[in-house]
Amino acid sequence: MSERGPEHRATGKVETAPAAHGGDLGAARALFPAAPEPWIDLSTGINPVPYPCPALDASLWQRLPAAADEAALRAAAAEAYGAPDPDYVAAAPGTQILIETLPRLVQPARVAVVGPTYAEHAAAWGRGGHAVAAVPDLAAAGDASVVVAVNPNNPDGRVLPAGDLIALARDLGRRGGLLVVDEAFCDLESAASLAGALLPGLVVLRSFGKTYGLAGLRLGFALAVPETARGIASALGPWAVSGPALAVGRAALADRAWREAAAAARAADAARLDRMLARAGGAIVGGTCLFRLARFADAPGLFERLGAAGIYVRRFADRSDLLRFGLPADKGQWCRLSRVLR
Amino acid sequence: MSERGPEHRATGKVETAPAAHGGDLGAARALFPAAPEPWIDLSTGINPVPYPCPALDASLWQRLPAAADEAALRAAAAEAYGAPDPDYVAAAPGTQILIETLPRLVQPARVAVVGPTYAEHAAAWGRGGHAVAAVPDLAAAGDASVVVAVNPNNPDGRVLPAGDLIALARDLGRRGGLLVVDEAFCDLESAASLAGALLPGLVVLRSFGKTYGLAGLRLGFALAVPETARGIASALGPWAVSGPALAVGRAALADRAWREAAAAARAADAARLDRMLARAGGAIVGGTCLFRLARFADAPGLFERLGAAGIYVRRFADRSDLLRFGLPADKGQWCRLSRVLR
Repeated sequence: MSERGPEHRATGKVETAPAAHGGDLGAARALFPAAPEPWIDLSTGINPVPYPCPALDASLWQRLPAAADEAALRAAAAEAYGAPDPDYVAAAPGTQILIETLPRLVQPARVAVVGPTYAEHAAAWGRGGHAVAAVPDLAAAGDASVVVAVNPNNPDGRVLPAGDLIALARDLGRRGGLLVVDEAFCDLESAASLAGALLPGLVVLRSFGKTYGLAGLRLGFALAVPETARGIASALGPWAVSGPALAVGRAALADRAWREAAAAARAADAARLDRMLARAGGAIVGGTCLFRLARFADAPGLFERLGAAGIYVRRFADRSDLLRFGLPADKGQWCRLSRVLR
Repeated sequence: MSERGPEHRATGKVETAPAAHGGDLGAARALFPAAPEPWIDLSTGINPVPYPCPALDASLWQRLPAAADEAALRAAAAEAYGAPDPDYVAAAPGTQILIETLPRLVQPARVAVVGPTYAEHAAAWGRGGHAVAAVPDLAAAGDASVVVAVNPNNPDGRVLPAGDLIALARDLGRRGGLLVVDEAFCDLESAASLAGALLPGLVVLRSFGKTYGLAGLRLGFALAVPETARGIASALGPWAVSGPALAVGRAALADRAWREAAAAARAADAARLDRMLARAGGAIVGGTCLFRLARFADAPGLFERLGAAGIYVRRFADRSDLLRFGLPADKGQWCRLSRVLR
């Protein structure tokens, strides 16, 4: 199989050092085989209080996903996110596959990823044969024709000014370039989303699983002007989203009351977690209402103490002074976390 | 968004004339608004008697799909399909997304698609910027460096000799080329699969949803030598397959007794359908045990009579003398079909 040139090399590189991710308790159990079960997984930014799934008709599993159901999902997404209409929405089986796909739709380019941030963006553009550079802020993007920013950022929660992003998107669009804004953690934040300000040259990514606590369902969206949204959907082909994800996504995205209650509850949880981390000597660096990043004098030691107690948090290979904490799900988890942090 | 050149044009072309597919009753209802409900959908090759889904733990929806669960699915697939081991298996959210992805992993090439066949293969290679030609058989592939064959073929059920396919794959592999064999309808057939004969230059596609009657779940596989399988999986990124699909797929693929019973029952159904179509004046062209293709003196008229009676079958824009019939699900559906065909 004669692979496209730059990709072959990049794939090899990524395979030898795959990006680290939270969310896999198999990895936690391998690190701490003597830890008590059940594990508390605080290694992700997934809402620990999931949306209550509606009952699913068996036909959703059995039949090919229907075009009308996909259209209804896109309409619900456009309404929930504030996009002009469903033509501005492409639905996918998770945002990750959009992150993998976008680099293959764009001519080889110089790509600037504002970071440090979620590692899969730079990795995917590298695999797609692009020249990728990490830059500390938008101003440092220089003459890159593709700029990628996560807003609010993961793991530090930094929010970039909407005006700067829109100006950059307009400039890139004029030059045939592209600004990708990953708003994975925007649903429950007051941070201004760009979903209502879509213009040529701008692609906004929205994740479903994190906000709704349904990461296993695999559902995500790209928001863009209709021609671009159609191109992205076409690259995924028909029936990209499963029948159950179409139904659950449509119901959940239309449920504004649940989303508003979740935003308030998770913001209170995040404030509680900050207090608990501060009492344990942590300096809060930032985060969103689904995760908090803190600096500790002995972060590796705390990671070990938490792991030994069956609590999995996110550490960073290149920043050993930091730990990221997701939110405990219930009173029992808060108590177990509090005991280790005390 | 400056798109990769040839793709942009191909996408435009495909958008104006999207491939026709069965399986969407919305389209049937639009064609026949006065037809009685419930519709009988015979427009696909999906097993009408689905695998009985096991009870699913809520965590499968809520958590990110675990690496260990994906490995277990790949092991079950390797065993069920006869691939050497799980390293030869890449799992995807449906075969369609693999059909879309493969063309983006291969250097621009001359591609021969053995057809007429499932239209998305040629369309996807065209969108990926390749020069695509339809050829009537393997011998006509000439010096194409990528050859695509559906085996058994959809819609006519033609089976290509395994020896010819393996010889072609070996030759293409030596030249850095690729043979893609779509075995979507191979699970319940006696036709020899190439899953046990994987070699460099060969990618075998296997669909889960058709055999198991769970097309809405979205699950499919690419089988290939480990380096190629890893490259395909890497292009989809982590968590490509949903938690429920990992669990259901693993259970179903391990259930040899169900598969053997399904093969016998569907073969009997296919023989019964052939008799019914022949009595109605149809000349059986071929098919698999999940669908039958027949020629009729007035196929358009029969399509209309079936539609008016709420029965949706597959017609072909370029072959107006043919109709493809999926299998009725139960006694009631057999009776309604029989009444129209009488």
